Amino acid sequence: MDFAYSEDSQAYQASLQQFMKRRLLPLNGEWLRRASAGDYPLDLLEPLKAQARDDGLWNLFLPDLREQEPGTAMTNLDYAPLAEIMGRVPWAAEVFNCSAPDTGNMELLHRFGSPGQYEQWLMPLLKGEIRSCFAMSEPDTASSDPTNLAGTIRRDGDSYVIDGRKWFISGANHPHCAFAIFFGRHENEPQADAHHQHSMVIVPLDSPGVEVARNIPIMQHHSLEGHCELVFRGVRVPAENLIGQPGAGFAMAQARLGPGRVHHCMRTIGQCELALEMMRERALERRAFGKFLSEMENIQEWIAESRLDIDQARLLVLRAAWLMDTHGNAAARVDVAGIKVVAARLQTRVMDRAMQIFGAMGLTPDTPLAYFWTWGRALRLMDGPDEVHLRTVARAELKKARETRGATAPYFTL
Amino acid sequence: MDFAYSEDSQAYQASLQQFMKRRLLPLNGEWLRRASAGDYPLDLLEPLKAQARDDGLWNLFLPDLREQEPGTAMTNLDYAPLAEIMGRVPWAAEVFNCSAPDTGNMELLHRFGSPGQYEQWLMPLLKGEIRSCFAMSEPDTASSDPTNLAGTIRRDGDSYVIDGRKWFISGANHPHCAFAIFFGRHENEPQADAHHQHSMVIVPLDSPGVEVARNIPIMQHHSLEGHCELVFRGVRVPAENLIGQPGAGFAMAQARLGPGRVHHCMRTIGQCELALEMMRERALERRAFGKFLSEMENIQEWIAESRLDIDQARLLVLRAAWLMDTHGNAAARVDVAGIKVVAARLQTRVMDRAMQIFGAMGLTPDTPLAYFWTWGRALRLMDGPDEVHLRTVARAELKKARETRGATAPYFTL
Amino acid sequence: MDFAYSEDSQAYQASLQQFMKRRLLPLNGEWLRRASAGDYPLDLLEPLKAQARDDGLWNLFLPDLREQEPGTAMTNLDYAPLAEIMGRVPWAAEVFNCSAPDTGNMELLHRFGSPGQYEQWLMPLLKGEIRSCFAMSEPDTASSDPTNLAGTIRRDGDSYVIDGRKWFISGANHPHCAFAIFFGRHENEPQADAHHQHSMVIVPLDSPGVEVARNIPIMQHHSLEGHCELVFRGVRVPAENLIGQPGAGFAMAQARLGPGRVHHCMRTIGQCELALEMMRERALERRAFGKFLSEMENIQEWIAESRLDIDQARLLVLRAAWLMDTHGNAAARVDVAGIKVVAARLQTRVMDRAMQIFGAMGLTPDTPLAYFWTWGRALRLMDGPDEVHLRTVARAELKKARETRGATAPYFTL
Amino acid sequence: MDFAYSEDSQAYQASLQQFMKRRLLPLNGEWLRRASAGDYPLDLLEPLKAQARDDGLWNLFLPDLREQEPGTAMTNLDYAPLAEIMGRVPWAAEVFNCSAPDTGNMELLHRFGSPGQYEQWLMPLLKGEIRSCFAMSEPDTASSDPTNLAGTIRRDGDSYVIDGRKWFISGANHPHCAFAIFFGRHENEPQADAHHQHSMVIVPLDSPGVEVARNIPIMQHHSLEGHCELVFRGVRVPAENLIGQPGAGFAMAQARLGPGRVHHCMRTIGQCELALEMMRERALERRAFGKFLSEMENIQEWIAESRLDIDQARLLVLRAAWLMDTHGNAAARVDVAGIKVVAARLQTRVMDRAMQIFGAMGLTPDTPLAYFWTWGRALRLMDGPDEVHLRTVARAELKKARETRGATAPYFTL
Repeated sequence: MDFAYSEDSQAYQASLQQFMKRRLLPLNGEWLRRASAGDYPLDLLEPLKAQARDDGLWNLFLPDLREQEPGTAMTNLDYAPLAEIMGRVPWAAEVFNCSAPDTGNMELLHRFGSPGQYEQWLMPLLKGEIRSCFAMSEPDTASSDPTNLAGTIRRDGDSYVIDGRKWFISGANHPHCAFAIFFGRHENEPQADAHHQHSMVIVPLDSPGVEVARNIPIMQHHSLEGHCELVFRGVRVPAENLIGQPGAGFAMAQARLGPGRVHHCMRTIGQCELALEMMRERALERRAFGKFLSEMENIQEWIAESRLDIDQARLLVLRAAWLMDTHGNAAARVDVAGIKVVAARLQTRVMDRAMQIFGAMGLTPDTPLAYFWTWGRALRLMDGPDEVHLRTVARAELKKARETRGATAPYFTL
Repeated sequence: MDFAYSEDSQAYQASLQQFMKRRLLPLNGEWLRRASAGDYPLDLLEPLKAQARDDGLWNLFLPDLREQEPGTAMTNLDYAPLAEIMGRVPWAAEVFNCSAPDTGNMELLHRFGSPGQYEQWLMPLLKGEIRSCFAMSEPDTASSDPTNLAGTIRRDGDSYVIDGRKWFISGANHPHCAFAIFFGRHENEPQADAHHQHSMVIVPLDSPGVEVARNIPIMQHHSLEGHCELVFRGVRVPAENLIGQPGAGFAMAQARLGPGRVHHCMRTIGQCELALEMMRERALERRAFGKFLSEMENIQEWIAESRLDIDQARLLVLRAAWLMDTHGNAAARVDVAGIKVVAARLQTRVMDRAMQIFGAMGLTPDTPLAYFWTWGRALRLMDGPDEVHLRTVARAELKKARETRGATAPYFTL
Repeated sequence: MDFAYSEDSQAYQASLQQFMKRRLLPLNGEWLRRASAGDYPLDLLEPLKAQARDDGLWNLFLPDLREQEPGTAMTNLDYAPLAEIMGRVPWAAEVFNCSAPDTGNMELLHRFGSPGQYEQWLMPLLKGEIRSCFAMSEPDTASSDPTNLAGTIRRDGDSYVIDGRKWFISGANHPHCAFAIFFGRHENEPQADAHHQHSMVIVPLDSPGVEVARNIPIMQHHSLEGHCELVFRGVRVPAENLIGQPGAGFAMAQARLGPGRVHHCMRTIGQCELALEMMRERALERRAFGKFLSEMENIQEWIAESRLDIDQARLLVLRAAWLMDTHGNAAARVDVAGIKVVAARLQTRVMDRAMQIFGAMGLTPDTPLAYFWTWGRALRLMDGPDEVHLRTVARAELKKARETRGATAPYFTL
Repeated sequence: MDFAYSEDSQAYQASLQQFMKRRLLPLNGEWLRRASAGDYPLDLLEPLKAQARDDGLWNLFLPDLREQEPGTAMTNLDYAPLAEIMGRVPWAAEVFNCSAPDTGNMELLHRFGSPGQYEQWLMPLLKGEIRSCFAMSEPDTASSDPTNLAGTIRRDGDSYVIDGRKWFISGANHPHCAFAIFFGRHENEPQADAHHQHSMVIVPLDSPGVEVARNIPIMQHHSLEGHCELVFRGVRVPAENLIGQPGAGFAMAQARLGPGRVHHCMRTIGQCELALEMMRERALERRAFGKFLSEMENIQEWIAESRLDIDQARLLVLRAAWLMDTHGNAAARVDVAGIKVVAARLQTRVMDRAMQIFGAMGLTPDTPLAYFWTWGRALRLMDGPDEVHLRTVARAELKKARETRGATAPYFTL
């Protein structure tokens, strides 16, 4: 066992931190002002992207990136601390072409896409020329149990016809968003078991019948990239837009999940680390009732608990990344469920403490805390509520118990 | 001891519930649509106000309302359940002229205002013709310890000159907001002890030098009435705008606090009760993994815990109201500190459960839950952070211990 | 609504507090020393009982105590604060003939007992001449769901024959314990639905076939009165020992529950109140790192939170008592489930804080805290685990939701 | 980074697990029966010790064990999972000569002991011929702040004279306990700063003036090895019994701490892992209300949360062990404080869930859960309360903040 980051990862961490400090953070104020006015500051973004690509800080998330593809291949474990660093600034990942949900879509197409899809959709994504979204959740079903999903994909001659209402489609409002991967029930295929009835199809967003019904405010807040409600009404796409095999939607969705969750969790950890830095600075500066906040035992405990919570969560996430690298994504399925729960809770817990230390200021957009806190709450539902993931962890434990039934008997004293 | 509401209160509860159901709720959708578009729907509001006044559902919050003053006088205890009912709809209180911070300002002027202030400012408030705000918190000091407050009130001939930056001034953005009560350090008075250095002055909002610097978004959300940052630069008001005695600011602020906090807490309880109703309805309707949410033990526990949490909090708040009615506001000071903490936490706790039961929908403005949740978080800082109120409760306990030192000795077994 | 105790209750509270202070507490040290050596100090107890009876502090728990019966009748609500006061000393209730499980057994026999049972068993209990126990829980079934209970009652001529293994039978080790009320499946009766298959029978503890298998240590601690495992092997009792009707066991058990739980909860509250007094005294006396514990913000918060927790719980319990008095025990069924959960959790929470303030000393028998803490943990399982009671509360809420389905629709903004 | 145990550690884990299964667990029932009757089953112990020593499972805790010393040297990181395995049975560590507080005492003497102390005290400890204890905490001072400690060590000719009252001296009741290391204020030394006023002296337990005043019950439970109160009255020991330099007590105590805390924490984790195994087995077997506990969502969540809690805690502890191995014990000081808090809380949290799943049985000594739960509570105070360790963590964070003041400014949006 060795708890030190690899030299490779350490070098990239240093390089990324320098980039953040010298190039990205100086633009943070301008970005936020313009973003809060509803403007997507593409003119700030594109030069940063070009620089990041030149610096080798590009597409770092894809362990099996091939030589002809732009960017630097890293293992999940080596990439994880980079996601943590990027996470500190909500708009940073795009600079390095490491934004969700593109990362997951790139992985998917990298693994399951046809040569035509590779050229038409994956390469522009890898180059950062377009963005994409992933249309799975539906307002009218408990989407955490995906066998419920009711959107349809129907074969009609050389086309697929797509119908359904999807929501919380992240990224659909990005000005460069070119296509959605639509997850739906594959109607013409012979009736299979519940886990082989869905497929995935690429749907260009400019297809007739695609409507962005609204950019849903989460906690009253519209994100710039959007968490959108999309309506698909009789949308017709060429049959070659089907990804992989008919009915393989579930299997591919499963495969897509692991790395993206690690990224999400590490970004959360980066944000919590930032919040901890902010709260400890604030505690040194702010006085009330004749002493500094840093001298108060309750404030000290919030700081200490945050350190302990963050460090534990990070180790758990890194272990899941390591497990994917060494044993494959499937082997890490339960671990990935676990980190999802741990990280989302961590985010609200740490942010809550930080906000309380900042007082009323913590509620305002003068700090990033309120955004991180509300977003943390959303994370407890995004990609499935905590309860679904806890269920996965519990079932794995019960499975072990079934295999070793009676093993604890010698510890009883009856 | 008698845990039944008085007949008077029960009659008004029934009447208010009918009003809410028949007149107010049918307009809720329109209100919310227009409010979310930034429009203050005064044309919906004014007829409702007129009707409420006709129905005797007006100024219910003021126990010592005099005969010539419009409205119905109720005790704090009898009013409390009415505040709970109003609380279910965030914009309802204004219909009954029971909005914060006007209620507190009316109490203050009712008790300490000069005859001139009575005519010029109090009567229009009691009639619902104008609104008002209360300018106390400052961005640059830990305002929870009000001896820190640095805004200044300086006597200059027949005027007072006001300077300072205040924030989180609720209601300042209301189109009818006519004046602020400014709380500041009284400069020309002989130097008194720390609790007699501040005064309160009425400052018309259209005075030269008053600037509404911004309507501060709380959790990225601008409220319609505003939680504003106000700048006062050399604002000159007539000397008769001083409320009460010079240096009496603290004492009056203390007196102002109790009833308003009870109202806040009861509105919280009304919102939590609504959230509980929503979550239990949802649990009966939504299915996942082959069963209704209502059949799941974790969901059942959230429902049960919410019932127990709400009922306990309500009893504590009602007891504080009863204590004010029977022993005076001062006697309830510590109790009022306690309910502030209990209710604010309750709000985030219950809303958190309800949001989780609603899944992604709970994050959207399609339900009031996300608003109630973020507002609940703000309540943990509004009027002082939880920690300040817990400190008040703790000091009262320690005082008792000092008076009975050694009393527990017979219970030890040494 | 009136939050003041009745004058009657206040008078008895004063009288009881005096008794505790002057007569009982001076013997506390001796009692504990002897009890910890395994001796039941009956010679201390009997004079106190005689005095309590003379002082009218006897059988205070039975609202419908008749004139010819010794003691003072009080409502549940008036008795509740007396139970709180008694609760502060674990052995006190017996002095006033208010010990569990006798109180419940006396209620039961008072209400359902035959004239013969009245004379033979109830009057000696009311006079404090004997003690009793209630044999319901079984080791081999999940007794929280009593339809599972498997002990049997079989009619054989003029006798009933009793078989079964029961555990956690409180009081069975008391030197005066004369009989158990056995709850079991009534075998000879025609097969009824699951809730009419059980009966209750009085079983003298000296009957052949009754064995006290062990006094079960709870958290490694043997109580003096015992929480015993009893084995009944072919125990034969006269047929007139049946209480009430055959098959009426459930209904009677339900009726028996309410008041006893209020007593339990109020004793818990008394113990928590004592712990709060102890922790605040300790905080004033103990120094670490250059200041008194009372000056530390975390300690202050534990004290304040304990005050708020206790006050809320007490109000909820008192309301349940009031509900029983005014609407009957059945009407309070759900409330009684709720207070059981609230009080048991309160006990561990408050004791945990107090122990932490006392440091290592809090772990020792030098204070009553460790006992109260472990007992609090047991309370979360005694009379059914928290989860069963939360289920009761949740089902009541869901029932309301079924009756008002759709009521929350106007609050949605869709 | 590599999350796999070393091959060496894995081999010893397998070997130790086999030993536990084949040799130790079959004697567990007998041990517990005899121990609960107050008998120290030395006749069971000694053959197991001999076997363990033959098998190379001896003194595994001492990384710098020298060749001539019996046992197997392992790094802290490699030993940690072995401590976890031993922890599952409370009496197991002694079999492998890895019991606290001997491990800490052996480390201390190994590092600071004179040649004479090496021969007289360390070698018998290493051989498992004697046991020892460490006398630091005092009843009359807040011992978590050791500058308070008041026991005295006074030079008198060729002797030291020892006076003081110590408590919670673990192991002092063991039949083989031969000496205590006494920590006290060194009176004759020139007055140094507060951290150089204490020394350590070896005091044979059979010295005149040493009295074991009592074996303190923790949660009403006397341990077999004892957590004792010891009184030292004018105890005279030879001057060569001083360990290290006069006034070096603090520095040596600090050095002694790290590894022992890792052992404690890993034993906790072993016990929690066992509890998790027990609760998941129980959940598969027990039915209530028509379903298995394993089918209930709340039970599933307890299982899943326990898995996530345990895994995070273990990683944090292992990282601290790794840090000691790679950067020295001093570098891990803050980490060691952190794991102490995390593990002690984990123990009560996981045990609490397990007890609740076992129902009343969880309260009895029929399972080890009640013992582990109460012991977990004690751990939150042993070696200093949680709050002291959180303070250490917080101060380290605040120190970092002082060094990077202003670093978070670019993340604000002002």
